Amino acid sequence: MTPAPGSFTVEEYAARLARAQAGMAKRNLSLLLLTTPADIAYFTGFLTRFWESPTRPWYLILPAAGCPVAVIPAIGQALMARTWVDDIRCWQAPDLADEGITLLADTLLEIAGNGGKTGVPMGHESHLRMPLDDWQRLKRAAPEMSFVSDDSIVARQRMIKSPSEIAHIRAACNIAAGAFARVPEIARAGVPLDQVFRRFQMLCLEEGADWVAYLAGAAAQGGYGDVISPADPRELKHGDVLMLDTGLVNQGYFCDFDRNYSVGPPSDTTASAYQALINAAEAGFHAARPGATAADLFHAMRDVVGGPLDGGRFGHGIGLQLTEGCSLMPHDQTVLAAGMVLALEPVISLPGGQIMVHEENIVIADGGAHWLSPRAPRTIPVLEG
Amino acid sequence: MTPAPGSFTVEEYAARLARAQAGMAKRNLSLLLLTTPADIAYFTGFLTRFWESPTRPWYLILPAAGCPVAVIPAIGQALMARTWVDDIRCWQAPDLADEGITLLADTLLEIAGNGGKTGVPMGHESHLRMPLDDWQRLKRAAPEMSFVSDDSIVARQRMIKSPSEIAHIRAACNIAAGAFARVPEIARAGVPLDQVFRRFQMLCLEEGADWVAYLAGAAAQGGYGDVISPADPRELKHGDVLMLDTGLVNQGYFCDFDRNYSVGPPSDTTASAYQALINAAEAGFHAARPGATAADLFHAMRDVVGGPLDGGRFGHGIGLQLTEGCSLMPHDQTVLAAGMVLALEPVISLPGGQIMVHEENIVIADGGAHWLSPRAPRTIPVLEG
Repeated sequence: MTPAPGSFTVEEYAARLARAQAGMAKRNLSLLLLTTPADIAYFTGFLTRFWESPTRPWYLILPAAGCPVAVIPAIGQALMARTWVDDIRCWQAPDLADEGITLLADTLLEIAGNGGKTGVPMGHESHLRMPLDDWQRLKRAAPEMSFVSDDSIVARQRMIKSPSEIAHIRAACNIAAGAFARVPEIARAGVPLDQVFRRFQMLCLEEGADWVAYLAGAAAQGGYGDVISPADPRELKHGDVLMLDTGLVNQGYFCDFDRNYSVGPPSDTTASAYQALINAAEAGFHAARPGATAADLFHAMRDVVGGPLDGGRFGHGIGLQLTEGCSLMPHDQTVLAAGMVLALEPVISLPGGQIMVHEENIVIADGGAHWLSPRAPRTIPVLEG
Repeated sequence: MTPAPGSFTVEEYAARLARAQAGMAKRNLSLLLLTTPADIAYFTGFLTRFWESPTRPWYLILPAAGCPVAVIPAIGQALMARTWVDDIRCWQAPDLADEGITLLADTLLEIAGNGGKTGVPMGHESHLRMPLDDWQRLKRAAPEMSFVSDDSIVARQRMIKSPSEIAHIRAACNIAAGAFARVPEIARAGVPLDQVFRRFQMLCLEEGADWVAYLAGAAAQGGYGDVISPADPRELKHGDVLMLDTGLVNQGYFCDFDRNYSVGPPSDTTASAYQALINAAEAGFHAARPGATAADLFHAMRDVVGGPLDGGRFGHGIGLQLTEGCSLMPHDQTVLAAGMVLALEPVISLPGGQIMVHEENIVIADGGAHWLSPRAPRTIPVLEG
């Protein structure tokens, strides 16, 4: 049996489980019930793009003591058997009459008994990846069990990355950096933006990405107004600022950073806005250390770029998801700790209501932070314009 | 204002809304509350890869009468304003104290009043894309409102594609076909499978995909055992059967079909298994017409490939999701209708427990079906081995 792609050592998974079990003990939980790709990958190494299909739900149970139990569609048995999980219980999905709920309820009751307390991620950034009808049906099938919030045990635990996880993210950053360095090959005045998006994804793959889960960007005269729209066929032109922001995947882990380019020489306004963004990211970096808060990093960057903030935040955690964990914003008092991986993402407002966004990835270490993304040039790169 | 990429005419969105409202009237629903990318895109044209970030929930309300109302994070305002939706209400997300729930509850109450009945997709293949804590909070904020299943109004409606939707899927199929035709450029004995996966995604992009949301596949001697694992670095070798299965995206719409290749000349077993799969897909195609059931197509294919079925189904609907709608399996009695787009996906068992899978995409039309994927060669293509 070959291990599943991207998986870690059994010891690492056992340590993750032990940590979750310590949290469960404090909260008197009998087990945790997990349903999403990132949570299940974190505790098992089960990595597949098959999550793209919404048809089948997948369940992982972490008992208060002992080993994880997977309750999954039969189509996933072979892949799950390549992970460290030994107890794998399958049903033939799809099953319109009973989509694994009887098997799941029986398994929960076997592990925790009547009166058991099942923790489920219910907080910020979570969702339950199963139909609500089935969720109700599960509760009816185990009426003496209680289903409560996991109190963000899993989300908080996932915020602190192991050295192996950090290595995966660093490798993702290096792949993206390789693609960003080659943008002059694919982008210049006259090239349609949607073509730039396609070619940039090709560069990411050529540089070693497993897949390109996220690409956003924009291009407009002297700045841009919107950073989540898909590309349109408008051609790049002299005076545009082009921004590309990618979350590519390496062994299941994301990087998330962007680069800006000027099509033709930048205006003074563009050049100095870019410089301010670089300085802001550095200020965020220097403020980043164990004991500082997410809000501290926001304020450090805000002191450089100034102005009103409409965008919500100046960065966030990354890992098995494009964004996860804390948000760099005034009201997030998360205390940073060694092993946290963050995107620093300052935004600057330009005359005329436009913006520019810059983004780098860092990891918190004892005494400070380290860059994971090879840093952007200190002056805005210029494309043929 | 330029229309959002991939969007349809206002008339088409108005017709989709009217159809949903007819379903709501029958069930006495005051409104529908939608939270997922596909459901929101279907009724608005709001298309973004930003859904990859789990941080922010997004809400679309379809009232029993009148126009849709979007309750969304401010970061999406500019893109939503490019759709036909005029009533856009935003909050500054992330907001750890109130992630849009007060605004959402107020909007629901404004539209439907106390005693209103809110329909939410709760059935097969659905999920609620918001934290369960917020779901409970919403119900507490509108205690005299009831929240019930939408009775699959939305899922059933989405099964029947308009001519414009079919055109988008057909174009996706043609892009994938272009990439499949070029597989001999990138795959031969000695090339690692993960490299084939990367290069194939590059071909999809070069042929015109907006992005490659899904790629699965496998390669092993004379067949394969697992079709959902990510690629590993094992090199292709003489006698392998290579299968690549892609769900690439064009204007928000998926194709979903695969191709098999023999590395070096195929064995007689491989050649005849491939032939049986081609014949099975044709049998499914000839059985496909309005009035036939999903189960009928399963049986038509099963009669050709024979043997026990462990895989669950021989195909499914496609559209804004990789898999959606009906399943081609014995217990799915969905009656086919013109406009349904399906993947025919017969599986054949081989000696030694391996399988081969073949997949094509079709659309149901009056009197029969049409192929959307340009059909696979009748004999298995051979790669340099």
